[in-house]
Amino acid sequence: MKALIIDIDGTLTDESRRLDLAAADAIRKLDIPVILASGNVLCFVKCATKLIGTSDIMIAENGGVISSGFDGPVRIKGDHTRCAGVLEMLRGHFELEELDAADRLSDVALRRNFDIEAARHIIADNGITNVELVDTGFAVHIKSMDVNKGTALLEVAALIGLDAGDIVAIGDSANDIEMLQAAGLGVAVGNANPALKDIADMVTSGRYGTGVVEALKYADKSSLWED
Amino acid sequence: MKALIIDIDGTLTDESRRLDLAAADAIRKLDIPVILASGNVLCFVKCATKLIGTSDIMIAENGGVISSGFDGPVRIKGDHTRCAGVLEMLRGHFELEELDAADRLSDVALRRNFDIEAARHIIADNGITNVELVDTGFAVHIKSMDVNKGTALLEVAALIGLDAGDIVAIGDSANDIEMLQAAGLGVAVGNANPALKDIADMVTSGRYGTGVVEALKYADKSSLWED
Repeated sequence: MKALIIDIDGTLTDESRRLDLAAADAIRKLDIPVILASGNVLCFVKCATKLIGTSDIMIAENGGVISSGFDGPVRIKGDHTRCAGVLEMLRGHFELEELDAADRLSDVALRRNFDIEAARHIIADNGITNVELVDTGFAVHIKSMDVNKGTALLEVAALIGLDAGDIVAIGDSANDIEMLQAAGLGVAVGNANPALKDIADMVTSGRYGTGVVEALKYADKSSLWED
Repeated sequence: MKALIIDIDGTLTDESRRLDLAAADAIRKLDIPVILASGNVLCFVKCATKLIGTSDIMIAENGGVISSGFDGPVRIKGDHTRCAGVLEMLRGHFELEELDAADRLSDVALRRNFDIEAARHIIADNGITNVELVDTGFAVHIKSMDVNKGTALLEVAALIGLDAGDIVAIGDSANDIEMLQAAGLGVAVGNANPALKDIADMVTSGRYGTGVVEALKYADKSSLWED
């Protein structure tokens, strides 16, 4: 394992979004780059990076924002304007509550209080093919379809000079699917969305941060990484 | 002790800004409101509040921003325009680097790479009496003089129906002075700024989060709170 890319909400934190202290401790003991990848905004990911002590490469907004260095360049990968356009279209059908509206650069986040499947049908009926709705369990995102935590993993791997195959990814939600698929070892924690478990290389018995600790013990075994 | 108001950087975190896990654990065991009070921006305080698990009343920007509820009203207490004006004036004398420029609502934060005392003299020479420079050890803030973590403590005490005398405050920097003075018990951690230690009711031997754990054990003794 040469790098770890790990989701925050529901993976490093529990259902009330509190940090699992044992998982934070296990991560601090790692000798490799550890990169947080979240659906949340960059400011949140920066704060989590500082408090936990992970590397200063950060993936926010479902891969839509990539930042290298706390004061470094911020790359915006998604089409926020198009996502905002889809939001306006959907407001004609649902009462929608935008989250972090002032802070999002790449995608749109909404409170999970509307019929997501119905919204997906409306998007399809409108012939919109480059924007998708993703439910993370914490929020629903309107995001560019060609941007995700997997494309971000590939970009970050290139940034730090590694192959994606040398990277372990750990997550819990639908927005972690491409990230786990792109990584050399994709791990779903015990509480994960079934669709994520389906594609994971490994599913931990432990839930949330307990699953992270379990995964790191497993991933540390050198036999895993021999050709 | 009926509530705890506690600084983040240098108190709950170490010099590299990593969260002290034992301190976070001790705080989670408390049965009272725990409110974070920081010089940092509200987004950072919100994230820390979620990850640590503190109450959803938050004090940011050195008391300049008070938020009750994650989606609740945000009160801006300081005069950002005036602070920005002082920044522009000082730029005529120093190379200044603003931090979080897009996110600050009440005060201005600068990187600590200029002569603060010289800047204070220039402010005084310009007859400016309602704005001050405060060095937290992490940043230098240009802030309204009548707004600080102490005025915020008083406002939050009223919000939650307590006397300031029932509140414990813990901090490490110059921007915690008024907060410790306003609280019933003001605690400076072992690494604290000497000016803060001077006015504290208690100085812990432990540094950073170790000092927090020590303070909480002490503050828990009921004999402290008898009239």
